[in-house]
Amino acid sequence: MAGRKGRMVIGQSGGPTAVINASLAGAVLEAQRHAQIEGIYGSLEGILGIIRENMIDLVRERPETIAGLSSTPSAILGSCRYKLTPADFQRILNVFRAHNVRFFFYIGGNDSMDTAHRLGQLAAEEKYDLTVVGIPKTVDNDLPYTDHCPGYGSAARFTALAVRDAGRDTEAIGNVDSVKIIEIMGRNAGWLTAAAALAREAPDDAPHLIYVPERPLNLDRFLEDVQRVYDRLGHAVVALCETLRDESGNVIEESGLAADVDAFGHPQRGGVAETLCGLIKKRLGLKARFDKAGTIQRSFMAAASPVDVQEAMLVGEMAVRHAVAGVTDRMVTLERIAEEPYQCTTGLVELAKVANVEKRLPDDFLSPSGNDVTPAFVDYARSLLGGPLPPYVRLAKHPVPRRTAD
Amino acid sequence: MAGRKGRMVIGQSGGPTAVINASLAGAVLEAQRHAQIEGIYGSLEGILGIIRENMIDLVRERPETIAGLSSTPSAILGSCRYKLTPADFQRILNVFRAHNVRFFFYIGGNDSMDTAHRLGQLAAEEKYDLTVVGIPKTVDNDLPYTDHCPGYGSAARFTALAVRDAGRDTEAIGNVDSVKIIEIMGRNAGWLTAAAALAREAPDDAPHLIYVPERPLNLDRFLEDVQRVYDRLGHAVVALCETLRDESGNVIEESGLAADVDAFGHPQRGGVAETLCGLIKKRLGLKARFDKAGTIQRSFMAAASPVDVQEAMLVGEMAVRHAVAGVTDRMVTLERIAEEPYQCTTGLVELAKVANVEKRLPDDFLSPSGNDVTPAFVDYARSLLGGPLPPYVRLAKHPVPRRTAD
Repeated sequence: MAGRKGRMVIGQSGGPTAVINASLAGAVLEAQRHAQIEGIYGSLEGILGIIRENMIDLVRERPETIAGLSSTPSAILGSCRYKLTPADFQRILNVFRAHNVRFFFYIGGNDSMDTAHRLGQLAAEEKYDLTVVGIPKTVDNDLPYTDHCPGYGSAARFTALAVRDAGRDTEAIGNVDSVKIIEIMGRNAGWLTAAAALAREAPDDAPHLIYVPERPLNLDRFLEDVQRVYDRLGHAVVALCETLRDESGNVIEESGLAADVDAFGHPQRGGVAETLCGLIKKRLGLKARFDKAGTIQRSFMAAASPVDVQEAMLVGEMAVRHAVAGVTDRMVTLERIAEEPYQCTTGLVELAKVANVEKRLPDDFLSPSGNDVTPAFVDYARSLLGGPLPPYVRLAKHPVPRRTAD
Repeated sequence: MAGRKGRMVIGQSGGPTAVINASLAGAVLEAQRHAQIEGIYGSLEGILGIIRENMIDLVRERPETIAGLSSTPSAILGSCRYKLTPADFQRILNVFRAHNVRFFFYIGGNDSMDTAHRLGQLAAEEKYDLTVVGIPKTVDNDLPYTDHCPGYGSAARFTALAVRDAGRDTEAIGNVDSVKIIEIMGRNAGWLTAAAALAREAPDDAPHLIYVPERPLNLDRFLEDVQRVYDRLGHAVVALCETLRDESGNVIEESGLAADVDAFGHPQRGGVAETLCGLIKKRLGLKARFDKAGTIQRSFMAAASPVDVQEAMLVGEMAVRHAVAGVTDRMVTLERIAEEPYQCTTGLVELAKVANVEKRLPDDFLSPSGNDVTPAFVDYARSLLGGPLPPYVRLAKHPVPRRTAD
């Protein structure tokens, strides 16, 4: 353990979330408790800050600032999406040598875990004593070997709230705007879209249909689904993932389907929700509109899940604790140990196992119909939202007896 | 006053909001205190419920249900957008006669106030004793003679929160997605878009540019504005209204501008944000993306303004109180009587003065540059959001001195 003494660098990578700063706070607060860590540097704009030697001294930040990180969304150090070259890896090691950096923490998704793993490998090859620990983060919830990813619970909570409210909205004004499509983020996996199911309290509640990229979209079946819901309820609310693909594996807006919207056969540029709204209007003659909260859904702090915030801090804290204890080349994971009340602890997994691997929704979370999730998924996701959604009422609607003949 | 005794009907109209049910609750609770009101009927789907004689008995709802209305978004009675024919007005009066309805309350915007006014006129002509009072509602905040409209404060709070969070998001990942456009609702007025300004705490905070329909968009100036912000900050966040028009008065997606996006000259179908994202990519070579919360912004209960909820209840309650006191053909208004602490009372205005009139943002709320609002607007809007946004931190970012020569 003698070698494990020196400065630490921490960086944030990939798409921001509501709680990625909570992980930073957890790591910084824990690091300050260990004499082995002789300085805490933040790398600005992810790994780019090391390459550019553009780092800040986090020890000099005011304690109130560090404490306030867990209620401040997005990536306060700045982020990046950058694929490193061999020269970049060498450069990073040189910067680490120059500053006696012995600990590196990277908060990110599977790409970032790959970066962290390669950096650790290079350091080992060059016999530079470097401890590397990954801290998971992604609203996509697509990292393997962890029950779930910090960032997901908060985005899932926003999604459930937004779909519930937009669903009530369509229910009220369905005689004007009959169909609503809510487009939800997800790079290749439908975890966040699936969370729309948590909006439901009663069988006819929105969302009535859920489409995820794990199941290719059959357009005719989709239109039949929408028509059937509309015929039954007088409105239909659809939650679907931005990266939905057709049966040939093309994303919808680049597929042949999109061309169908335009009478001249020109493919439209809109996203999947907009394209499908066009098709619903054209083929079913129903008015359709879409909501696409975009980046709002991943960073909306006012609806953050308290469980998610707390777990994001925990994984940051545990990453540092493991690092000073000699663990390296690992990512911290979350392991669910109990339900009712929900309890989670942390574990560890080799970075190489996480690097560039995507965990998609498993079959038992998806209904055979291809347009919904299963109760098993709802059971999985419920606790991650950090408590039930605030209760809404419904009227009993006792009818007034008619008194006119018309 | 002797004649003013009988049943009441209440209906909800136009686009739902987070607090239109709070107005219903206020009216129902107040009505139950007056012996003159011998029955409380809710009309399903706005005025259509009367025409179809599709009404429910609100007195038979459980008290917990009525109490829960003020935390339940959207229009629980159902809404409509329907222009009445002369035959419809006659039909409504017949239904009212059949049920001895003597009080009619309509919660809605300027179209609904027109409907209520005409109905009152017809009743007067036919010597049918009917009291008609309007209850204001619209996230567009475009009703005249009232300081502001219930529904606006909550949608404004969501907008400020969403723009602040999406702004922090772009700030973090501006090296990838440099420009973000947030498209905000507004039928013909920019009040809700203007509320994006409440997201700012420091001079460089998002939104950096705000465009409202009160000022036609000059495309070249718009692109210059975006480029200038990007050059200074490395990213740019734009809040703009969905009904923005060009200098010829055309909505952007139907104007010549849109055609410019497509190499073949085909007009694109996207909304204004998507169209302008395309132009930013093509003309400035910057990556741009858009967020369009759509109906989520008008119904998102988790971010409702407590002031708005309370005022929505108040206008419902006051409408009933005025009606039983003999007032008719009026809409309840909100009158601001003090700042710090903010205080509001209610007033009355003739329905005819509100009917079909739109109040747009006045000049002194819009900066001469055409791309921002003034501090006077921010002062106007701040209290309506129901308290400051939760505090976020910023790092001081003490730089680590460089130690490498590269």
